[in-house]
Amino acid sequence: MNLTESLQKKIDSKTKPLGSLGTLEKIALKIGEIQNTLTPTLSNPMIMVFAADHGLTEEGISSFPKAVTYQMVMNFVGGGAAINVFCRQNCIGMRIIDAGVDFQFPGNSTIVNAKIGNGTKNILKEPAMSVETCLKAIRKGRELVKNEHDKDCNIIGFGEMGIGNTSSAALLMHKFTGIAIDNCIGRGTGLDDAGLQNKKEVLKKCAEKYHIKDPIEIMATFGGFEIAMMCGAMLEAHKLGMVLLIDGFIATSALLAAKNIDNAVLDNCIFCHTSNEQGHSLMLEYLKAEPLLNLGLRLGEGTGAAMAYPIVKSAITFLNEMASFDDAHVSNKS
Amino acid sequence: MNLTESLQKKIDSKTKPLGSLGTLEKIALKIGEIQNTLTPTLSNPMIMVFAADHGLTEEGISSFPKAVTYQMVMNFVGGGAAINVFCRQNCIGMRIIDAGVDFQFPGNSTIVNAKIGNGTKNILKEPAMSVETCLKAIRKGRELVKNEHDKDCNIIGFGEMGIGNTSSAALLMHKFTGIAIDNCIGRGTGLDDAGLQNKKEVLKKCAEKYHIKDPIEIMATFGGFEIAMMCGAMLEAHKLGMVLLIDGFIATSALLAAKNIDNAVLDNCIFCHTSNEQGHSLMLEYLKAEPLLNLGLRLGEGTGAAMAYPIVKSAITFLNEMASFDDAHVSNKS
Repeated sequence: MNLTESLQKKIDSKTKPLGSLGTLEKIALKIGEIQNTLTPTLSNPMIMVFAADHGLTEEGISSFPKAVTYQMVMNFVGGGAAINVFCRQNCIGMRIIDAGVDFQFPGNSTIVNAKIGNGTKNILKEPAMSVETCLKAIRKGRELVKNEHDKDCNIIGFGEMGIGNTSSAALLMHKFTGIAIDNCIGRGTGLDDAGLQNKKEVLKKCAEKYHIKDPIEIMATFGGFEIAMMCGAMLEAHKLGMVLLIDGFIATSALLAAKNIDNAVLDNCIFCHTSNEQGHSLMLEYLKAEPLLNLGLRLGEGTGAAMAYPIVKSAITFLNEMASFDDAHVSNKS
Repeated sequence: MNLTESLQKKIDSKTKPLGSLGTLEKIALKIGEIQNTLTPTLSNPMIMVFAADHGLTEEGISSFPKAVTYQMVMNFVGGGAAINVFCRQNCIGMRIIDAGVDFQFPGNSTIVNAKIGNGTKNILKEPAMSVETCLKAIRKGRELVKNEHDKDCNIIGFGEMGIGNTSSAALLMHKFTGIAIDNCIGRGTGLDDAGLQNKKEVLKKCAEKYHIKDPIEIMATFGGFEIAMMCGAMLEAHKLGMVLLIDGFIATSALLAAKNIDNAVLDNCIFCHTSNEQGHSLMLEYLKAEPLLNLGLRLGEGTGAAMAYPIVKSAITFLNEMASFDDAHVSNKS
């Protein structure tokens, strides 16, 4: 009997009707396979929140001013953002990473300094970053995940903060999936109809300006520093055999790039929620992913991953802690 | 400004795009309204698991033998069932209630003795119980919830164990909603096609045998002791201003009865998940309910309620713990 069969046998031996824990059974099987064991564990769960600024905000593609990126990073430090609250509640660690915010944070804060630059360039005029810079961001993401793994973390969620980053994510989605650009663009943090129209016009011009195929070049041209770094983080997390918690629209755009670099990264992914941001459902469909939650969230920061974590944990706890029919002297199906 | 408006203002002041916490915002509003406060709390969450036997099992309507009811109750006592695991994980208390199992449990166990009888009668031959007995079960359910409320519990989930109880639930659903009996009947713990066919034939005969309208009489005729007691528990929980976590097919059938006795009970309900048991989706549609989870669960015991609890808690923690735009010096939408 191979590992998959042994895991399935263990799942089926538990005191419950066959298959009655639905998706939880699939998650238990998947994590057992990732960790190559019948008794998987989740240790030191961590959400890494990558923050960066976007030059494209010059074109008025967001309803919030750019300064909100650094202000929200300071809010993370103060513990007052949604992701802080949900991480505390669910006993998940949190790293705040300055991947390239246009602000000089105080040196004595808990922010991880991984600054690649003070925000990307305006994609309408030139690529967001050079290929060299993009590779640097990806390497940095790998290094940061390696650090967590060294501290015995085996499950990691990816969050982000960056005013303007739904625009980068939409462009990456369009280039990686071939889905029409209009279907990739949504209201982000809450654009009105006129704002959405402007965003669509700007992004169409961006999409038409560059004709490129290489995944690193696509990321360099359309990405953000936080998205490129997240992509590297995902690749490393997979390489190290960790479980990856995939959040919403931005995180999934980073995954699309990671998948184009190494398709096997998908083997370790748990899709946490379906975002209300237009385009995310199509991304998930493209990836044949069925997320755990559908709660109309569109906040980012990794909040969907933090909220889905207890369900992932339930999959592990039932596998490890539930009694079998034999253990509990319960009669099985007649 | 009334309470609802003040709650909405508080929700909208949090450092997040307007509406971006989706369903969580609705839950926060609802619990604020139930508790009549801007700072709701969840204290001593409890899942009550009501167990009882069903005379209709004589007709071969379940794929598990009747003895599994008491065996699973002993499994609850031993801490090895799914509901034990999820309650431990999510710091939820658990009461195991013998509402009418056909077994004499040891007096020194942690089982709450609320035994109404040694299982119901065979509905194909006579009503499951008398109206007097049904009223006794409802009163007992009220009393048990009152006890929890006295111990400072303000949120309560309802679970059950009873081989054969999807049959009672299907009959209750049919009588309370008017939905065709065939659409109310599912495979329960895992009937094969022949078993499902037999269950349908038996339940059709049961449904045609009795022509009654009064909700108590419907419950007496088709219910189980655990379902009637749960119905009383729900009514009392609403009366005491508690939050009700509604689990799957059986718990929702108890709620249909409760709603027919006092429609206001719905004001305090949070629907936790959509069960994979045929019929539950239609029940939810009938109640215009949009549950938090859809994970293909069909295990009962209150497992859906236990798994949804962290999400309910997230709604409260964001409302109480997140910073406002003013607090955190974050610029609001421009």
